Amino acid sequence: MPTIKDVAKLAGVSFKTVSRVINRSPHLKDEMRQKVLRAIDALEYRPHHNARHLRTGRSNVLAFINDDIAMTPFAGRIIQGAQEASWRNGMLLLTLHTGGDRSFERAAFHAALERQVEGIIFATMYHRAVEVPDAAFELPLVLVDCFASNGPYMSVVPDEIGGGYAATKCLLEKGHRRIAMINADLKYPAAAGRLEGYRKALSEFGVKFDSSLLRTGGWWQEDGYEHAMSLLEVKPTAIFCVSDRVAMGVYDALKERGLRVPEDLSVVGFDDQELIAPHVRPPLTTIRVPYCEMGSWAVEHLVKSEGESDKSRKQVVTLECPLVVRASVSKPSRVPVATRRLRLANT
Amino acid sequence: MPTIKDVAKLAGVSFKTVSRVINRSPHLKDEMRQKVLRAIDALEYRPHHNARHLRTGRSNVLAFINDDIAMTPFAGRIIQGAQEASWRNGMLLLTLHTGGDRSFERAAFHAALERQVEGIIFATMYHRAVEVPDAAFELPLVLVDCFASNGPYMSVVPDEIGGGYAATKCLLEKGHRRIAMINADLKYPAAAGRLEGYRKALSEFGVKFDSSLLRTGGWWQEDGYEHAMSLLEVKPTAIFCVSDRVAMGVYDALKERGLRVPEDLSVVGFDDQELIAPHVRPPLTTIRVPYCEMGSWAVEHLVKSEGESDKSRKQVVTLECPLVVRASVSKPSRVPVATRRLRLANT
Repeated sequence: MPTIKDVAKLAGVSFKTVSRVINRSPHLKDEMRQKVLRAIDALEYRPHHNARHLRTGRSNVLAFINDDIAMTPFAGRIIQGAQEASWRNGMLLLTLHTGGDRSFERAAFHAALERQVEGIIFATMYHRAVEVPDAAFELPLVLVDCFASNGPYMSVVPDEIGGGYAATKCLLEKGHRRIAMINADLKYPAAAGRLEGYRKALSEFGVKFDSSLLRTGGWWQEDGYEHAMSLLEVKPTAIFCVSDRVAMGVYDALKERGLRVPEDLSVVGFDDQELIAPHVRPPLTTIRVPYCEMGSWAVEHLVKSEGESDKSRKQVVTLECPLVVRASVSKPSRVPVATRRLRLANT
Repeated sequence: MPTIKDVAKLAGVSFKTVSRVINRSPHLKDEMRQKVLRAIDALEYRPHHNARHLRTGRSNVLAFINDDIAMTPFAGRIIQGAQEASWRNGMLLLTLHTGGDRSFERAAFHAALERQVEGIIFATMYHRAVEVPDAAFELPLVLVDCFASNGPYMSVVPDEIGGGYAATKCLLEKGHRRIAMINADLKYPAAAGRLEGYRKALSEFGVKFDSSLLRTGGWWQEDGYEHAMSLLEVKPTAIFCVSDRVAMGVYDALKERGLRVPEDLSVVGFDDQELIAPHVRPPLTTIRVPYCEMGSWAVEHLVKSEGESDKSRKQVVTLECPLVVRASVSKPSRVPVATRRLRLANT
């Protein structure tokens, strides 16, 4: 096999010049370019991966198509996990961001197919149902943090129920019985699953579900702040929040009312957001979503599943959402919250 | 030009079967595969981009090599900007995350060259100097949010000085004269530039720089909290924070001391972090870093610079960091902060 050095020698030019010709640099005299091209022809030198690819029939590329993951501060770890697993397996990751636009999405799938990738990972910025484009049937596909509404596909998602269960259980084990939950809209699988886990844990500990302790709204600090204010009236000893952002709003509300976490009220979040959870005062006990692991799982599955039967492509696999213990949970306060607040107000 | 449908017709099979052969699906009988391959040969059908690429000599792919951007909740917007500009220009973005590992970095550059990309964007998760691998000389290259320590390369970075200036000026214009700055280590170009902008604005307004109002440390909430506590002793009327995370810690400290933002103390952040700045109480006035614009600029430059002289590759271009006005700045409190705090403590 001739190398780039052989070409340089035959043409009587430097390695750098050959490289420039190969890469179509515009800054070269035509005479020089012709000399190099003649040497390339004479030696039948095939410099490029693309040419090699046509010979070996393998591209060693996986496509990572996603809606808007780079925009979310947590789901970016899916890319990290997929990237690391790809390097480990000698694969490259062609990352295509669609911004959630359906026509970009179709274009991305076609671009991936055109480039003869060996598999596709389709990931979303939050756990949801997706419609997989028809083009996807041609190749091994793994959905990450989403599942298909239009047929069976291999899919890996967080165990939302297990996460909600773990968060609630850690409060129950400390002795809490009046545990409020600030949830998001149940149309989100994450919200529905986390609520199911909350109810499952309560039921296991023989605690009756009390709908007056449940609030439903958005995912943001403002939602946490408002719901915490109204929840104080019904005297919970702990609040399980559907997201760390909600927990951050809960912290703000409690501070404004002169209440301390965890002495007066315990708080558990969800997401383990790097920017928030370890850095609020006190650091937040929360649930980690296995973003990195999901990305890695998807790549490993694609690499290993070559030749497997179609059946293995039709499951939804869940990965554990583990508890991350920090400093926002303690035993329940002996004095109910609302009473303490009134006493503080009267002093 | 024959199409995939012509192949299916000649072979007497479905479109789907042809597609599977082309994409080397393992779930096909060999007889079927041979039938399709014969039809492909007979029609000289060239299905793949790679084959087309060899004919046209253009890959229509740009490589986006980055250290760990997907891990940072703000710099992800660089990818968004680059992605959108690529779509606009009919290019695909091959995104390669190196995790900051130097050997992965070299591998990424070589992989990009092998795949005959038309240009490389090299982006970092925070503004810093980088050593550009030798492999990069072969292709048009734009550095984003970083600059080369080993030679002149085209580079686009935030105007840190302008950002620091805008933050400080908005406080000066409200009448503040005792403006503290909580900065990060000056080894970071962002910290050095923001401080320079702060001093420039002070000087323009005839305010003498007072080193007792300057604190230097890290980028995090904890740094903001600690420095705010010590700054209160020297009675600033406003604090300019090197990051929104630092500002979040400042908020915590002020709340603990019973001080209100902005009535008792004005606060300005830097970064305009989506997760924090609009959602703290009160919403934070801050400086936006033009991540999206830098990503977009890099792609547009690569697309347009074909055939330009080498000179245009040797500049560092800065993009504006604009002020985002929210609710954390007002006129200075008439009662100095430390006095007010003592009075509150005495009631």
